Amino acid sequence: MAKKNAFYAQSGGVTAVINASACGVIETARKHKDKIGKVYAGRNGIIGALTEDLIDTGKDSAKAIAALRHTPSGAFGSCRFKLKGLEENRLQYERLIEVFKAHNIGYFFYNGGGDSADTCLKVSQLSEKLGYPLQAIHVPKTVDNDLPITDCCPGFGSVAKYVAVSVREASFDVASMCKTSTKVFVVEVMGRHAGWIAAAGGLASDNGCELPIVILFPEITFDKKKFLAKVDAMVKKHGYCSVVVSEGVQGEDGKFLSDQGVRDAFGHAQLGGVAPVVANIVRDALGYKFHWAVADYLQRAARHIASRTDVEQAYALGKSAVELALKGGNAVMPTIVRASDKPYKWKTGVAQLKNVANVEKMMPRDFITKDGFGITEKCRAYLTPLIKGEDYPPYKDGLPQYVRLKNAAVPKKLGEFKI
Amino acid sequence: MAKKNAFYAQSGGVTAVINASACGVIETARKHKDKIGKVYAGRNGIIGALTEDLIDTGKDSAKAIAALRHTPSGAFGSCRFKLKGLEENRLQYERLIEVFKAHNIGYFFYNGGGDSADTCLKVSQLSEKLGYPLQAIHVPKTVDNDLPITDCCPGFGSVAKYVAVSVREASFDVASMCKTSTKVFVVEVMGRHAGWIAAAGGLASDNGCELPIVILFPEITFDKKKFLAKVDAMVKKHGYCSVVVSEGVQGEDGKFLSDQGVRDAFGHAQLGGVAPVVANIVRDALGYKFHWAVADYLQRAARHIASRTDVEQAYALGKSAVELALKGGNAVMPTIVRASDKPYKWKTGVAQLKNVANVEKMMPRDFITKDGFGITEKCRAYLTPLIKGEDYPPYKDGLPQYVRLKNAAVPKKLGEFKI
Repeated sequence: MAKKNAFYAQSGGVTAVINASACGVIETARKHKDKIGKVYAGRNGIIGALTEDLIDTGKDSAKAIAALRHTPSGAFGSCRFKLKGLEENRLQYERLIEVFKAHNIGYFFYNGGGDSADTCLKVSQLSEKLGYPLQAIHVPKTVDNDLPITDCCPGFGSVAKYVAVSVREASFDVASMCKTSTKVFVVEVMGRHAGWIAAAGGLASDNGCELPIVILFPEITFDKKKFLAKVDAMVKKHGYCSVVVSEGVQGEDGKFLSDQGVRDAFGHAQLGGVAPVVANIVRDALGYKFHWAVADYLQRAARHIASRTDVEQAYALGKSAVELALKGGNAVMPTIVRASDKPYKWKTGVAQLKNVANVEKMMPRDFITKDGFGITEKCRAYLTPLIKGEDYPPYKDGLPQYVRLKNAAVPKKLGEFKI
Repeated sequence: MAKKNAFYAQSGGVTAVINASACGVIETARKHKDKIGKVYAGRNGIIGALTEDLIDTGKDSAKAIAALRHTPSGAFGSCRFKLKGLEENRLQYERLIEVFKAHNIGYFFYNGGGDSADTCLKVSQLSEKLGYPLQAIHVPKTVDNDLPITDCCPGFGSVAKYVAVSVREASFDVASMCKTSTKVFVVEVMGRHAGWIAAAGGLASDNGCELPIVILFPEITFDKKKFLAKVDAMVKKHGYCSVVVSEGVQGEDGKFLSDQGVRDAFGHAQLGGVAPVVANIVRDALGYKFHWAVADYLQRAARHIASRTDVEQAYALGKSAVELALKGGNAVMPTIVRASDKPYKWKTGVAQLKNVANVEKMMPRDFITKDGFGITEKCRAYLTPLIKGEDYPPYKDGLPQYVRLKNAAVPKKLGEFKI
């Protein structure tokens, strides 16, 4: 087959290990120079393709590319930009194909979540219609862990580890203080629709180290009375408790709990988190002294405490994407297939994109305890392997050494395109 | 000299390394069994002494005590309980002496910040007055780094490392997203009076890795106009910026910036952090998309990313406290003495408690840049060695293995005492 170039882009919220997938794609492509020419990356994701703002990853050394494996964030820039449906905005899809054509791109690797799986599928379909040969492969990535078919999603394991470790550490802290001070600690974590990240807070407590933890899942409607009774019982029994609350928790009115119509002194709406709301509910009803934290980006950027399993899987899926491409794959996504829990064994598989796009995987009800505030043994068996192993980045002067690439621009060949 | 027992207590907010000091005290005392009998600890700090609720640390194995070195929080419990002045509450001080006498305690090791240094001094003075021979040694501890004489305080280096690492990671994240999404990231850190912890955010950016960071110090009155101009300039130049804000930042009215009179829909006061306030100020004036985080306890409990320098110093000061006691020291505190910045060299010294109690060490003005939003080279030279080195705890199943001691109670000999 004629030698084609590849295009790689990062999409949506970045993670601690999306660059490990990029590393897997680029290093594997470099091993197949007979079949894959250059690897271009989109500057700021798919926007880079639309505006013909391509990066030549070939300008970066093998050492720099290898360092992607331990560097969080999106090394080429990502974007929150969802291509509309083919009918609504055919021009954008046609532009993509035009840019791919101009730069002899035959492989499209799109690294993202559910939305980008959908885009990837549409690009594949249109290229077929337009008679332009393109192999579109989706590389899964999302801290939300909500993609179907794959056993888990790269990015999730590291956030889960961050949350489990942080909740354990903070719980130890509160346990020390609760005699005269803080009795309830509330930490807000990501996951607007699915409670996978919140569930990871449950791992902080295990047989070797039991800790009183209450989890608020987005899958379970917030019941103030039940919640307060649970917290009160925990504090009465253990002297303290930690509450892990998902940003997506909703009340009986179907509104986000964080959306409390809070106003400042001038009547302006305040954008707050759900952690202070929950903390205030505890204070008002039970009077316990509390502290609260909002982890926000710290959790998904925390490469310093990444899960080794997660890093290995992120890399493996990037590698597998290229291997699938070389075997002629199109409109597919490499997946993680779990062979066994204990010992944990996994391999890569493959899913058809038509089965992936626009499907969200929520926490199964039997992963959540009957009272709605904890995780079951089944959930624990699923989650534990995903946070296993450490994979520390190199340090200098006390700080992790993360790489910044040259990100050299590829000369443009086409006219401007307005997005 | 007659063999006496020792008493050790933890005071105030706990840290990632206060147990490393406990480890230093206990291990060193165990090496001098000819002079020091048992090492008792106060359950929940000084309250344990007042209520005669003592823990026999001798019931825990050498292995368990060694594991304190990598365990965050206060293993024996801490408390926020400040003894009043000698005149106001002489009874409490006399009770302490009575308990010490009943349990043949000749050494009092008090591990805490400024308040506990003051208590330690008063206990020493009263024991002298009452003719009870007691050597009172203060072991410094505070994430706020605001004790005088000592070059730095155990607990601070690890929080500083957490903040520097987290700000670097989050800045990488925002840099990836800023084209279409978040442009300003605000993270709130501890330090109500002194800006040492906020300053550590400045370390995230260095010669090898420049990042746009704006710091809001409690030492600098918040100037909204200047702040907004700074943020706007950063975003215009770099596409994004990170703001590190100390919880103690005050406005021109002398009120905490976090104290915005925020009310919920029912008119109840909301206890919020300063990060959302700053984020809302940016949104209202500049319209930039933002994210914010509040690290709270996560920062001071984060043993997983502790500074090796900090751990070594915390241990060394615990060890030094016992050595000072064996040399007859009283009303003193072991200190860190910096011999040189580059290469970093330090040793332990000794301070008189009368020079430590009730003195707060703020950031010198020449550690803060002229515009008030950054750290100077002088500050960097001071801070950098304190975050150097990693000291990872052991892991099992993806989680750090922190020790919980038996904390076996010592039989009581006295009647009850109401506090």
